[in-house]
Amino acid sequence: MHAPWLPSQLRYVILTQGQTHPTPAKTAAGMLRYRRNAVIALLDSDQADRDAGELMGTGVGVPIVATLEQAIALGANALLIGITPPGGQLPLPWRAIILNAINHGLQVISGLHHFLSQDEEFSRAAQQHGVQLIDLRRVPDDLSVNKCRAAKLDNLRIHTVGTDCNCGKKITALELDRAMRERGLKSTFIATGQTGVLISGRGMAMDRVISDFVAGAAERLVLEAEDYDYLLIEGQGAITHPLYAGVTLSMLYGFAPQLLILCHPAGRTIMRGTPETPIAPLQEVRSLYEAITRPVYPARVIGVALNLMDFQDENARREIERVEDEMNLPVTDVIRFGPEKLLDAILEWEKANARSGI
Amino acid sequence: MHAPWLPSQLRYVILTQGQTHPTPAKTAAGMLRYRRNAVIALLDSDQADRDAGELMGTGVGVPIVATLEQAIALGANALLIGITPPGGQLPLPWRAIILNAINHGLQVISGLHHFLSQDEEFSRAAQQHGVQLIDLRRVPDDLSVNKCRAAKLDNLRIHTVGTDCNCGKKITALELDRAMRERGLKSTFIATGQTGVLISGRGMAMDRVISDFVAGAAERLVLEAEDYDYLLIEGQGAITHPLYAGVTLSMLYGFAPQLLILCHPAGRTIMRGTPETPIAPLQEVRSLYEAITRPVYPARVIGVALNLMDFQDENARREIERVEDEMNLPVTDVIRFGPEKLLDAILEWEKANARSGI
Repeated sequence: MHAPWLPSQLRYVILTQGQTHPTPAKTAAGMLRYRRNAVIALLDSDQADRDAGELMGTGVGVPIVATLEQAIALGANALLIGITPPGGQLPLPWRAIILNAINHGLQVISGLHHFLSQDEEFSRAAQQHGVQLIDLRRVPDDLSVNKCRAAKLDNLRIHTVGTDCNCGKKITALELDRAMRERGLKSTFIATGQTGVLISGRGMAMDRVISDFVAGAAERLVLEAEDYDYLLIEGQGAITHPLYAGVTLSMLYGFAPQLLILCHPAGRTIMRGTPETPIAPLQEVRSLYEAITRPVYPARVIGVALNLMDFQDENARREIERVEDEMNLPVTDVIRFGPEKLLDAILEWEKANARSGI
Repeated sequence: MHAPWLPSQLRYVILTQGQTHPTPAKTAAGMLRYRRNAVIALLDSDQADRDAGELMGTGVGVPIVATLEQAIALGANALLIGITPPGGQLPLPWRAIILNAINHGLQVISGLHHFLSQDEEFSRAAQQHGVQLIDLRRVPDDLSVNKCRAAKLDNLRIHTVGTDCNCGKKITALELDRAMRERGLKSTFIATGQTGVLISGRGMAMDRVISDFVAGAAERLVLEAEDYDYLLIEGQGAITHPLYAGVTLSMLYGFAPQLLILCHPAGRTIMRGTPETPIAPLQEVRSLYEAITRPVYPARVIGVALNLMDFQDENARREIERVEDEMNLPVTDVIRFGPEKLLDAILEWEKANARSGI
């Protein structure tokens, strides 16, 4: 699922108005970490003149500006909507920013469920100014149900899953893919959300697919990556997330991964987006992922990726040791300590299971 | 989610071409069982002049005709597409039948993913002949994510779930609802698939909803039925079904049912729609439903509804006893032996849990 609709040479100003801090806007954070050179500035008048790196923990040197015109003066030629509007509707001030960008001839890229290209006012303005409106969540219209072919492939499918949404599943898959390629292995990252699609230039936003076809869409992504030996597949949501679990489960059955990396935001207790649903204990979540896949396509949790963003170094190390003892699995924070521990576990598993002919 | 778009006074000819027998077309079977008086005829030239009851196990006295014109002569004023085309595309001969129906001034009702109302040829013809094209799978366009409100309601939500798709979840919910109303209880049936919508005149086809919004759509159906004490909620797919499990799980978290009825097609071994995925053992499936809901909204399996269609009476009774011993739960076939055993278990559970204040 290539994304030929994503032009190269885009230099982004990312709209993060009001959401740069304290919970860093996810799409902006992903772009700063993996497409740093394509990011000219963030647009957030509340944080103007500060440095992205200081507020987001990534993107040192990227300025935060108060107006679109400042970003254009710095060289931006595209506006990326880097945040999610509360309630799903586009707030009026954002509409004005988007229209202003179009009037300035900027391409506009969005991951919202509300498609810019189907918005009458935006598409009229875009046509007038010769500007492209790119909806990252747009999915193919010829999707179908799962035909159960992924499990028949002989590549190794490693899927990052979570105890919650927004806990490092995309980053863990990206870091593992990079580490594998550095070791000369033929691996690729499979994007399943709008930010992953933006970073990798392909993939599909699974949460936008008609529910009947999500497993089939997942299968298609795997079949298209058949040439690779290792697929590092971005997870979505969590099997126990009351908003998103259906997408999570459809993907498990469509990708048919042999191995799972369990991602967990250390210290968080309530699931994101819910009023009060507690994050279930790590051991219980691990058992659930293994139990639910067992009768269909058995998958095994091979390691844990903690998100230790809020921990000091010493406490972070202690937390990793504690979880290693609890789970009897390799544990790391891929950003702070690298993904090598997980990578070694994957390759050992592969060796052991190739030997025994599984 | 009422369906005011479904006109009353429709007298259906149901297209079941080639699929009347041996696996009875699901939509046709549902209509024959619950809307017998609205069905004028089935249209299947392979089975012309036979009786629906003889081939489908329900609908005695409804003739099978070879041509649309015969059905019109018998009084049909609407064509219902009662089958699913292989591969999801409309076979050419069906297109001709649909166009012929429109030309004769019949309303056309369809549960296909391919919307008739968005088909250029059909909608042009419909406009010309003043005919309505009704797509049962069309869902509202203002859906959103789950806001986790269903669990806060104090009604009793009973959800039929399965070991497979197509195993009696809709019928079990309908029969329980009927039995409850006969006992004077304030209950209602919640339709979640196109046939249920057609039978009850409301509900939503969950498998058509954008995956991000399925749990939210389920929540909406529950909130709209707030006035009822008992909701009998039709299930979809199965938690272990490699094609449909995501829809199943989204619904579990959106409806937040307290009680589950586990439906199982006795004697079937491979899941419908899969090349070779075995149906998991009943006990394992029961454990999975309870384990996956436990950390979010705990639900308990209170009984088993077997589909014993292919069993002789004596064997059917023996199978029920066997499963009762295995599961230590009340077991019935709601069509053959009625739903009372399950209903009693539900009311006993309610009494016990009201008493202990849960």
